Amino acid sequence: MSKKVAVIMGSDSDWPQVRGACAQLEAFGIPYEAHIMSAHRTPDTAAAFAKNARDSGFGAIICAAGMAAHLAGAFAANTTLPVIGIPMRGGAMDGLDALLSTVQMPGGIPVATVAVDGAKNAAVLAAQILAVTDEGLAARLDAARAEMAAQIAEKEQKLQAELAKN
Amino acid sequence: MSKKVAVIMGSDSDWPQVRGACAQLEAFGIPYEAHIMSAHRTPDTAAAFAKNARDSGFGAIICAAGMAAHLAGAFAANTTLPVIGIPMRGGAMDGLDALLSTVQMPGGIPVATVAVDGAKNAAVLAAQILAVTDEGLAARLDAARAEMAAQIAEKEQKLQAELAKN
Amino acid sequence: MSKKVAVIMGSDSDWPQVRGACAQLEAFGIPYEAHIMSAHRTPDTAAAFAKNARDSGFGAIICAAGMAAHLAGAFAANTTLPVIGIPMRGGAMDGLDALLSTVQMPGGIPVATVAVDGAKNAAVLAAQILAVTDEGLAARLDAARAEMAAQIAEKEQKLQAELAKN
Amino acid sequence: MSKKVAVIMGSDSDWPQVRGACAQLEAFGIPYEAHIMSAHRTPDTAAAFAKNARDSGFGAIICAAGMAAHLAGAFAANTTLPVIGIPMRGGAMDGLDALLSTVQMPGGIPVATVAVDGAKNAAVLAAQILAVTDEGLAARLDAARAEMAAQIAEKEQKLQAELAKN
Amino acid sequence: MSKKVAVIMGSDSDWPQVRGACAQLEAFGIPYEAHIMSAHRTPDTAAAFAKNARDSGFGAIICAAGMAAHLAGAFAANTTLPVIGIPMRGGAMDGLDALLSTVQMPGGIPVATVAVDGAKNAAVLAAQILAVTDEGLAARLDAARAEMAAQIAEKEQKLQAELAKN
Amino acid sequence: MSKKVAVIMGSDSDWPQVRGACAQLEAFGIPYEAHIMSAHRTPDTAAAFAKNARDSGFGAIICAAGMAAHLAGAFAANTTLPVIGIPMRGGAMDGLDALLSTVQMPGGIPVATVAVDGAKNAAVLAAQILAVTDEGLAARLDAARAEMAAQIAEKEQKLQAELAKN
Amino acid sequence: MSKKVAVIMGSDSDWPQVRGACAQLEAFGIPYEAHIMSAHRTPDTAAAFAKNARDSGFGAIICAAGMAAHLAGAFAANTTLPVIGIPMRGGAMDGLDALLSTVQMPGGIPVATVAVDGAKNAAVLAAQILAVTDEGLAARLDAARAEMAAQIAEKEQKLQAELAKN
Amino acid sequence: MSKKVAVIMGSDSDWPQVRGACAQLEAFGIPYEAHIMSAHRTPDTAAAFAKNARDSGFGAIICAAGMAAHLAGAFAANTTLPVIGIPMRGGAMDGLDALLSTVQMPGGIPVATVAVDGAKNAAVLAAQILAVTDEGLAARLDAARAEMAAQIAEKEQKLQAELAKN
Repeated sequence: MSKKVAVIMGSDSDWPQVRGACAQLEAFGIPYEAHIMSAHRTPDTAAAFAKNARDSGFGAIICAAGMAAHLAGAFAANTTLPVIGIPMRGGAMDGLDALLSTVQMPGGIPVATVAVDGAKNAAVLAAQILAVTDEGLAARLDAARAEMAAQIAEKEQKLQAELAKN
Repeated sequence: MSKKVAVIMGSDSDWPQVRGACAQLEAFGIPYEAHIMSAHRTPDTAAAFAKNARDSGFGAIICAAGMAAHLAGAFAANTTLPVIGIPMRGGAMDGLDALLSTVQMPGGIPVATVAVDGAKNAAVLAAQILAVTDEGLAARLDAARAEMAAQIAEKEQKLQAELAKN
Repeated sequence: MSKKVAVIMGSDSDWPQVRGACAQLEAFGIPYEAHIMSAHRTPDTAAAFAKNARDSGFGAIICAAGMAAHLAGAFAANTTLPVIGIPMRGGAMDGLDALLSTVQMPGGIPVATVAVDGAKNAAVLAAQILAVTDEGLAARLDAARAEMAAQIAEKEQKLQAELAKN
Repeated sequence: MSKKVAVIMGSDSDWPQVRGACAQLEAFGIPYEAHIMSAHRTPDTAAAFAKNARDSGFGAIICAAGMAAHLAGAFAANTTLPVIGIPMRGGAMDGLDALLSTVQMPGGIPVATVAVDGAKNAAVLAAQILAVTDEGLAARLDAARAEMAAQIAEKEQKLQAELAKN
Repeated sequence: MSKKVAVIMGSDSDWPQVRGACAQLEAFGIPYEAHIMSAHRTPDTAAAFAKNARDSGFGAIICAAGMAAHLAGAFAANTTLPVIGIPMRGGAMDGLDALLSTVQMPGGIPVATVAVDGAKNAAVLAAQILAVTDEGLAARLDAARAEMAAQIAEKEQKLQAELAKN
Repeated sequence: MSKKVAVIMGSDSDWPQVRGACAQLEAFGIPYEAHIMSAHRTPDTAAAFAKNARDSGFGAIICAAGMAAHLAGAFAANTTLPVIGIPMRGGAMDGLDALLSTVQMPGGIPVATVAVDGAKNAAVLAAQILAVTDEGLAARLDAARAEMAAQIAEKEQKLQAELAKN
Repeated sequence: MSKKVAVIMGSDSDWPQVRGACAQLEAFGIPYEAHIMSAHRTPDTAAAFAKNARDSGFGAIICAAGMAAHLAGAFAANTTLPVIGIPMRGGAMDGLDALLSTVQMPGGIPVATVAVDGAKNAAVLAAQILAVTDEGLAARLDAARAEMAAQIAEKEQKLQAELAKN
Repeated sequence: MSKKVAVIMGSDSDWPQVRGACAQLEAFGIPYEAHIMSAHRTPDTAAAFAKNARDSGFGAIICAAGMAAHLAGAFAANTTLPVIGIPMRGGAMDGLDALLSTVQMPGGIPVATVAVDGAKNAAVLAAQILAVTDEGLAARLDAARAEMAAQIAEKEQKLQAELAKN
């Protein structure tokens, strides 16, 4: 059976953004769990979840957090599963604080960082990771790419139609 | 047989850093190829390599580039394999240009970004990705973690010995 | 017959800004085409367009993109026509990501970068490029400058009138 | 008996800087322990130390770490003792990454952050904290201030002497 | 009797934020005074207050200021009590100016800096400082931590309930 | 006869870098003049040169300056020829000051900005501009591209030889 | 008779901010002129005004401009009167571009730079400059300081009254 | 008799840079005093000097300081003489901390800020301020400008000679 993806957010205020990651996983047919855990407010819960994640059937962990965003790093410290970090915008620094706190990990403990507020891409990256040994999922990823190209072609057509009118 | 990792650098001047990624892959017993390809100077070569990468037996692609670092993005645009980006320091901006150029990818085309000059962590992340369905590799990753902890314990002992002398 | 200018945007969401470049080209009587193409979602379309651009009668290419803005670089990699990059604001980084991703190009592959969101100036720069060997266009550029100076003189007069009332 | 100060560093490479904090504590006659612990490589050791710190007789904890500096935050998550963070310069970002990772803590879990590479000031701050209820230590702090002022006065005298010669 | 906390703001426009620090101190049962004083507009008043603060029964001083935020530094220059700086967002620089002006203090004169707009955390830090020798307050701090964890657990339950519905 | 390129630098200290632009122009067989003129120290000389540049047979102007780099903007204000700006690193800000001072031009007065210290690319861009109506130069630009690709292929071969030895 | 102050803005869109400088000058009884001139759109007008400014009876020149803010530098290049630069916020960079473009002047040609959007302070600085040899104006500046202190004292009283109610 | 200029530095380590300001003042024949005073280590000395500065015959005060550079602001808070701030590079932030701490002053208390490490320009600005009512000094400033232009002309000649040889 397919590996699950864990989607962890540091605060329920991240849910409106993080929900986009879950929707993307669903669109790919990937089982997932979403949880609220904090590296600073519930560190033991987070550490325990991370330590058991591989045995619990997870294949990748997505962590979304803002400001001094330690959540992804705290998970990465407690598992050797791939941990994907979403730096969340918020507070005064426009997400630069979260980006640097997430990506600048020390040697040996990487966090796979995506763009600031990049919830959807975190899910696509998780899917790409699971698809390394899942041909069906790889095919669905390719199909999604083709659809993106088709959408751009459609928008290009609309633009040409608009330009032709003038 | 195990998937290979492709290690791509935009310039041979990146090799002294990127070599660290190759050494780490070797330490984990992961087969790899290293290549010099440029998103801007040899775009067709890069695109062709990316398009064939999954069929060529690769499971992950590491791309190292500096300044307006497009290499990882150019690969990600042409494959649905996980692409890991190493922003290389160099030039005037201390790597901030490479970091933002690598991590801030648009929706649908993620690049798994590691720290500036984080060649070793790119290899560890590639190993973590392959280990999702490779229990032996996962065990080797866990062993590497244990060794890191042991090294810190050893350094702690040395520090205590040094402090005890005073 | 006069060379055309290609105006390429990475997403239709850039059109409200990019439209300003087209309006400016029209004001100078310069033929242009506007297209939506993505360095990451439709890389082959973009590369093919760039490779054929000189033969298709284009004299300059304007590329507008945000975040990890690779569009201008991807065009520059596939043509030796002058490529003008407009870094688009958007997302968390206020355009700094797009600016650095556009301007910090490696040796041999320049992108002529204008200000963040500088769609109008991209068109003026394209006109200046075509005017190098087009005296009529050069005269229209000079006239536009004179008009700008006249507008400032008019605003200065209004200000003096306002100040004189107090 | 007086409370101790714990001086924690994420890596032994921080010791040349962190040693300055220890020297300052000794100068104030404050008992301390120095340890190497990593938020990412030995997270359990760090968490256990933090949880027991108050009962072990510590009154403040100094944490020095660079890059995505989570050490101080990881300690703060596991104790309600004051945690003082020293952002260490290093790597590509000149310490801005460490500064933001240390200071931008979420509500409820503060880290008392000092300047980048500010090891000495971390020790002075720890001393100030212990001096709130320790008049003798407060007097030593006041004396140190007076000495700093005297040193400046002496340098001023030397400067005037130098200027008078010309 | 318990030490007081001084809460100083550079301008009454900071009060809506700073009020949160006062509310937090009240929740912990810590006596406090709030004052408006400016490092630049009323420097003598500020210096005099700082010099007398220890004798007036204060145990910590919280200073909130924006832009070239000198308030915390000006207090730290005139007392050896712990001074906690809150960099206030405002003006053009999104609080980066206030953060650097507050945290980058010279050797010997630390300011314990919290996050930009981190009024609540300034109060928590002040409480942590007073709690070093106040077991009752330490217990209240631990209780507040437990409550934060409980709130997250509750939000996690709500999220699981919401997810279960779909 | 072919148009000339003017290469202007704000200070003779820029010459070691700017010399690279001249070498590149020579390699393309493009006639050029190099001059030292300062927007701030010799503003009238600079303005006069810019105003006469088109009539003097120039087709593009390259301006190199650091810090508050006004040179390119001052030229752009006095000509409608394409002005190419090279932001020079130097002083405290690592070239960010020069980059923003060069690229963030107001509407109507563009500067075609290349990378920080990007002297060679400024020359390539000038060549691309002149090549719009010069097929021979366009062919030389294409040949230079082919040579760059050949160099990368050669380096790739060396790397494979090195890897094969191990 | 007293020297005048020139208040120059690069665009009429700066007037709502710049008006504050004029109001402050009026409050001090300092004669002034306000003008719209652009370093890039009307460079000759600006240069001529600057060259004649001392003979025209001006004692200081205030220049407000945004983005690649060259206005103050262009004035400073053409006069040895003190030139005060106001970096105006606007566009994508939150005024950092204007700040660096204004303050980072080369040796020999200073611009006295005030805070981003600091129109009022530019006027106060101009007044301080004229007051060096104008005792009456110096007295008015001292009175304004006293009034600022009084306003803070009044706000402090209101705060204490508000706190006393609770 | 002519007004004096005070040149204040926060630390004797600033002297090698600040000496350049003194040399420039001497070159203009302007009397000056240089002193070491610290906003944080000798706040009372600094405040007293500032309060008496006008009566002591000073016409402008130059303050050089790094990191959280409060020195200029502390002087500006205690005098209505023009205060010129030199942000000194040093520490981790390359002078950005000192620049923002110096320039971002609140309304009513300006600091005339020059470039990072801009000691010479601080002296030129002080001379420009004193020259507002000193025709002889104004003439010397104009002469210095003419000499700068002559030096550039000489360097231009050397460059042309060098180019003519090739």
